[in-house]
Amino acid sequence: MSWENNVRRVVPYVPGEQPKEQDIVKLNTNENPYAPSPMVTKALREMRARPLRLYPDPKADMLVSAIAKEYGLSNDMVFAGIGSDDVLAMLFMTFFNSAKPVLFPDITYSFYDVWAEMLRIPYETQPLDENFHIVPEDYMKENGGIVIANPNAPTGVAIPVATIEMIVKANPDSIIIVDEAYVDFGAESALPLVHKYDNVIITQTFSKSRSLAGLRIGYAMAAPGTIRYLNDVKYSFNSYTMNYPSIVLGTAALSDKEHFERTCAKVCATRKWVMKRFRDLGFKFEESSANFLFVTHPDVQARDIYDYLRANGVYVRWFDKPRIRNYLRITIGKDAQMDRLFECLEDMGIK
Amino acid sequence: MSWENNVRRVVPYVPGEQPKEQDIVKLNTNENPYAPSPMVTKALREMRARPLRLYPDPKADMLVSAIAKEYGLSNDMVFAGIGSDDVLAMLFMTFFNSAKPVLFPDITYSFYDVWAEMLRIPYETQPLDENFHIVPEDYMKENGGIVIANPNAPTGVAIPVATIEMIVKANPDSIIIVDEAYVDFGAESALPLVHKYDNVIITQTFSKSRSLAGLRIGYAMAAPGTIRYLNDVKYSFNSYTMNYPSIVLGTAALSDKEHFERTCAKVCATRKWVMKRFRDLGFKFEESSANFLFVTHPDVQARDIYDYLRANGVYVRWFDKPRIRNYLRITIGKDAQMDRLFECLEDMGIK
Repeated sequence: MSWENNVRRVVPYVPGEQPKEQDIVKLNTNENPYAPSPMVTKALREMRARPLRLYPDPKADMLVSAIAKEYGLSNDMVFAGIGSDDVLAMLFMTFFNSAKPVLFPDITYSFYDVWAEMLRIPYETQPLDENFHIVPEDYMKENGGIVIANPNAPTGVAIPVATIEMIVKANPDSIIIVDEAYVDFGAESALPLVHKYDNVIITQTFSKSRSLAGLRIGYAMAAPGTIRYLNDVKYSFNSYTMNYPSIVLGTAALSDKEHFERTCAKVCATRKWVMKRFRDLGFKFEESSANFLFVTHPDVQARDIYDYLRANGVYVRWFDKPRIRNYLRITIGKDAQMDRLFECLEDMGIK
Repeated sequence: MSWENNVRRVVPYVPGEQPKEQDIVKLNTNENPYAPSPMVTKALREMRARPLRLYPDPKADMLVSAIAKEYGLSNDMVFAGIGSDDVLAMLFMTFFNSAKPVLFPDITYSFYDVWAEMLRIPYETQPLDENFHIVPEDYMKENGGIVIANPNAPTGVAIPVATIEMIVKANPDSIIIVDEAYVDFGAESALPLVHKYDNVIITQTFSKSRSLAGLRIGYAMAAPGTIRYLNDVKYSFNSYTMNYPSIVLGTAALSDKEHFERTCAKVCATRKWVMKRFRDLGFKFEESSANFLFVTHPDVQARDIYDYLRANGVYVRWFDKPRIRNYLRITIGKDAQMDRLFECLEDMGIK
């Protein structure tokens, strides 16, 4: 016997690279190419160091209220965490304690199975169809919970809220998490469902559409009783999760709806011409409702493109996984960044 | 059956109040009364909003390196988290997976049993002696792990490293966590043990001695292989825990050793005269090596003092728990704050 026998052995999630070089075209972790709102700059300039000696508000009231107001909810329907990863980990801990398997697609955010494995939660992946679309019937069998990313990652494919509601209706005894990390780039939010069903939980993040990945702010929205269970577990893990800068700067970001809408629209406009260019070059992909595309080429291996781009300072994401090994997930950056990507592809001979 | 049957039911930790009023004398959550280093102010002033659009470095390399340098360790011996609460929660998850009980004192940081309950870890509290001192022999029986706060909270009592090493030697097959949240106020750190024993883990925090509770930075120090297990679980929970402001400002704080030493010395100097005043007023307490005192009065009920102080704008901490119900934990503030505390006690008739 050794202490090492009692170690929780896990295979951790591998995040995309965060290169320290300056002139990289970084299209590998779905960050927003535009700076955060000038209101964030202003709040940062006005921030003083002195209050940092005190613990932050454990309830992060200011931030939670701002989120609640933005979405027309009461404060007790909102939970804030350290990015949606923290929120989702807490949700898995709080709600997925059944002996029945939690269901999610075989191709989806690759952290779901990591959390399940780490927390020893039984799960069963459901294959997407050949066009990477969910088969709703797969989520209508016995289960211990359901997780659906909408739009899905890394595919970018969105499903209508009506489909989600159909799944919810078929599962009154399960928690259904709808992970809407990318919803602001063109998908329909399932948020209205939280007023009708106390077993639906919506998660969103400031990391993509609000250009604040560096602050780590995510949130869940659900019925008050559901959020209460989540808060109980959170307060059993870490009382003060949201630090002072997150609370202050996150709140400032929410006050600037115009910036948010304008930058999201710019990303969508770039996505539009980028899709056309990819099509012209012979790439195949499903319609994306997110700030990335998931592309494949009939003649050139994804891994080769990935390596070539990387060697030329353009980082995209390649997953060494079944069914998607010949795909690349490419973040929508600024027009000039996408131009450089296409130059590289042409240099490589894809024309 | 309902989804509520699968909810993880917990009794959460209750943090001390964070009142929003301005003129409170806040001696209830062991914050440092002095502002953070001017180097933090400088780094805050130089911080720009633009980098916030990017994910922070998942390894928090800059901060981890600064901590490693400060303590003469290699980077792979340091793990940073969102306050020591996050670090401790991760440690419990990573290392306490035995069927044997984890051992810690009956009177100690009240989050240990919350984590154990939340994670369904068996545990067994060991009674402190009547002077609130650890009985080392209690930690020399079969166990699934050991947690010792040194100095202990809420008592302030420290034990020598020799005693800790004795416990470590008796437990080669257990992980021993030494929670040194308050060590910089006068206790001896067990850090040298990590070079000799791979089953010893030291945790510390920026929240007290470095005046940065608002940033939420804690850290663990241990042998590289031990830290690796911890990192695997961390990367299975949330890749990016330390946000950009924490990394930048925390690193700045570490660069100012002079400020750190001077403010700690000031707290210790105040503690010295405060102890004398408490003694003169008839209070009883053990010698404290922390930035708080744990006091009781033979004639006046702690709860009455707590209520009286609170009504007069002086917040201290009272725990409604066995053995310590007649004690108050009082943070060492600035001299003027302690003067106001003693004025209140005198007004109350304690002379």
